[in-house]
Amino acid sequence: MFDCVAVVGATGAVGLEFLALLEQRGLPAKKVRLLASARSAGKRIPLKGNELTVEELGPDSFNGVDLAFFSAGGGISKQYAPIAAAAGCVVVDNSSAFRMDPATPLVVPEVNPEDVKAHKGVIANPNCSTIIMVVPVWPLHRANPVKRMVVSTYQAASGAGQAAMNELEQQTRDVLDGKPAQPKLMPFQYAFNLFSHNSDLYENGYNTEEMKMVNETRKMFHTEAINIAATCVRVPVMRAHSESINLEFTNPITPDEVRAILKDAPGVKIVDQRSPQHFPMPIEASGQDDVLVGRIRQDISRNDNRGIEMFIAGDQLRKGAALNGIQIAELL
Amino acid sequence: MFDCVAVVGATGAVGLEFLALLEQRGLPAKKVRLLASARSAGKRIPLKGNELTVEELGPDSFNGVDLAFFSAGGGISKQYAPIAAAAGCVVVDNSSAFRMDPATPLVVPEVNPEDVKAHKGVIANPNCSTIIMVVPVWPLHRANPVKRMVVSTYQAASGAGQAAMNELEQQTRDVLDGKPAQPKLMPFQYAFNLFSHNSDLYENGYNTEEMKMVNETRKMFHTEAINIAATCVRVPVMRAHSESINLEFTNPITPDEVRAILKDAPGVKIVDQRSPQHFPMPIEASGQDDVLVGRIRQDISRNDNRGIEMFIAGDQLRKGAALNGIQIAELL
Repeated sequence: MFDCVAVVGATGAVGLEFLALLEQRGLPAKKVRLLASARSAGKRIPLKGNELTVEELGPDSFNGVDLAFFSAGGGISKQYAPIAAAAGCVVVDNSSAFRMDPATPLVVPEVNPEDVKAHKGVIANPNCSTIIMVVPVWPLHRANPVKRMVVSTYQAASGAGQAAMNELEQQTRDVLDGKPAQPKLMPFQYAFNLFSHNSDLYENGYNTEEMKMVNETRKMFHTEAINIAATCVRVPVMRAHSESINLEFTNPITPDEVRAILKDAPGVKIVDQRSPQHFPMPIEASGQDDVLVGRIRQDISRNDNRGIEMFIAGDQLRKGAALNGIQIAELL
Repeated sequence: MFDCVAVVGATGAVGLEFLALLEQRGLPAKKVRLLASARSAGKRIPLKGNELTVEELGPDSFNGVDLAFFSAGGGISKQYAPIAAAAGCVVVDNSSAFRMDPATPLVVPEVNPEDVKAHKGVIANPNCSTIIMVVPVWPLHRANPVKRMVVSTYQAASGAGQAAMNELEQQTRDVLDGKPAQPKLMPFQYAFNLFSHNSDLYENGYNTEEMKMVNETRKMFHTEAINIAATCVRVPVMRAHSESINLEFTNPITPDEVRAILKDAPGVKIVDQRSPQHFPMPIEASGQDDVLVGRIRQDISRNDNRGIEMFIAGDQLRKGAALNGIQIAELL
C-alpha cells in the first residue's frame, strides 16, 4: 500500500489516462496528488467519486509522496525527478530524460521486470513505439533470438499529446469545410496527410523516435546483438500506434510457432483472422491493455525460413505510456 | 496522331484524371470518346472547352477507336479488352486482368519502355503501389542490383476509387459529429483509422495487393532474383500513396550515391531536406507527376553498407494510374 501517489502532468493525455487506470485497477494508494504547471493549478479532476484539485508542481511537492508518475516532458523530469527521489519518492518517468542513463532501469514489465530492483529512485518508462513493439517481440526473441528487425510505424496523434489530438480534429474540420489546415503544434498539415516523425534528426538521418526504438530495445533486451532499422511516421489516426514489423531470427521459425508463442504471451492479443479479414487496427486497440498482433506470415523475401512479418497495434496512451507506468508501480 | 481515343470508365477517379491529363498534356487525338456503364451514360463531362457525353460501353464501342484506356475494373477489361483489340484498337489497361499474362507487356515507361513493342493489342498498366515503388527503385537497381526489399505502404482512399474517397470524407464528418462511422465500400471504419489492404489473401498470408508488388516488379525488371516482402495498409489520406522502403543491394552503396542516381532519374523528385525537416508527404505528392523520394539513409541494421532506407510518396491517380497510361500511349 502506498501512502501517497503523485501524478506529475496530471492534466495531459497520459496523466489523465494514468488516473483512469488508477481508478480502474485500484492501485492501493491512500492518497493521490495531482501536480501540474501553474497554468493548470486549481483545475478539478474527478477520481473515485471525489474531486481532486490540481496543485502547482514545485520543489516541495514530493514531501510524503512515495510514488510519483511523471509525464510532463523531459525538462520537468530532469528538474524534478532528482528532487522527488531525494525526498524518498520512487519516480516512474514517462519522459526520455533518464531512459538511456545506465543507472536508471528502463522497464516493460512483460520484458524485464527484474530490472526494477536496481533502481536508485527513478525507473524509466520506454518510448511508446518501443513498448508496443517489444511486448510481442520479446517472447519471440527468447524462443529464437531476433537478429534484425525492419519496422515502419503508423503513429497516432495521441503520441504528441492531447493538443495534437485537438489539432488533428480541428484541422480535419477545417479541411472538410474547405478552409486551409493550420498547423500549430505539428509542422505540417495533419488532416488527411501523413509525415515523417518530427523529432530531431541524428547525423545518420534517423530521427530521435527511430533511434529510441533501437537503443531502448537493446537496453531492455540486454544485448547489442539485435539490429533494428525503424521508420517513424505520423498518420492521421487519433489514438493507438500501429507498426509493420519484419523480423529476422537466428534459427528457422514458422508462423504457427509464432502464434503458439504469442498465444500465451502476456500483454499480447492475437487478431489474425483471414476470412473474413480481421487484423490489428488502431480503433480496436484504443482503450485496450493488450497489443494486438496479426498478419503473421513467413517472410517470402527470404529463402531460409528465418523471416516473419507481422502487423501490430497498441494503445499509445495506455500500454505505450500510462499502463506500463502503473504496471511498473505494481512491480514495486 | 490518334484518330480516336476512348476512355472506358470515364466517370471514375482514374478516368477523370486521365481526361485532365489528356487536356493538360495535349495527347494528339482528333476525337475522344467517353465510355462507361449504363448508369453513367448520358452524363456530360467538359474537355478542352467542349462537353462530351458519356456513352454506354458495349461490344460495338471500339469501331474506329485506335487507342482505349480502360479503368473500369478487371471484369470489364476481361470482357471488353479482347473485343477492342480485335477491332484494331490498342488497349492500355489499368486493371489487373492482363498484368501477369505472359503475352501482355506490363509497362512503366521509366522502367521498361521497350516492352511496349511486343504488345498484341493490350498493354497493362501496373498496380499503383508497384508503379510508385519501381520509379525510384529501377535506376538504383540498374546501378547496383537490388537483392531484397521490405516495403510497408500507406495507401490513400483514392486507391479504391472516388467512392472510397467520398466514404472517407463522409465517415470523417460523421465521426466528428459524434455519429458512428458507416463503412460501406470499405470493410472497416476508415475515418481516423487504418487497416490492412482489403484485397483477397493468398495461402501464404500475403494479400493480392502485396503479391502484385512482388510479381509485377519481377516481370518489369525481367528478373526473378529480386525478393520483395510487402505489407499494404490503407490509411485515412485522401490521395497519393506513401511507402517505407528498405533495400538490400548486391554491392555496398551510400546515401550520396543513391541521391546522385535519383537526382537525374526520370519521374523522381528528391524531397530530402533535413533542416528544417521536409520529406515526402501525400499532400505534396497529390497532383504531381513525379514520385517524391526522401529519408534516404544508410540502413543501420546492417553492417555491410549494402542497405538503404527511403520514404516515398506518389500520386496514386496520376503516376500510379492515369499518367502512366498516358505515357504508355505516348510511347506508341
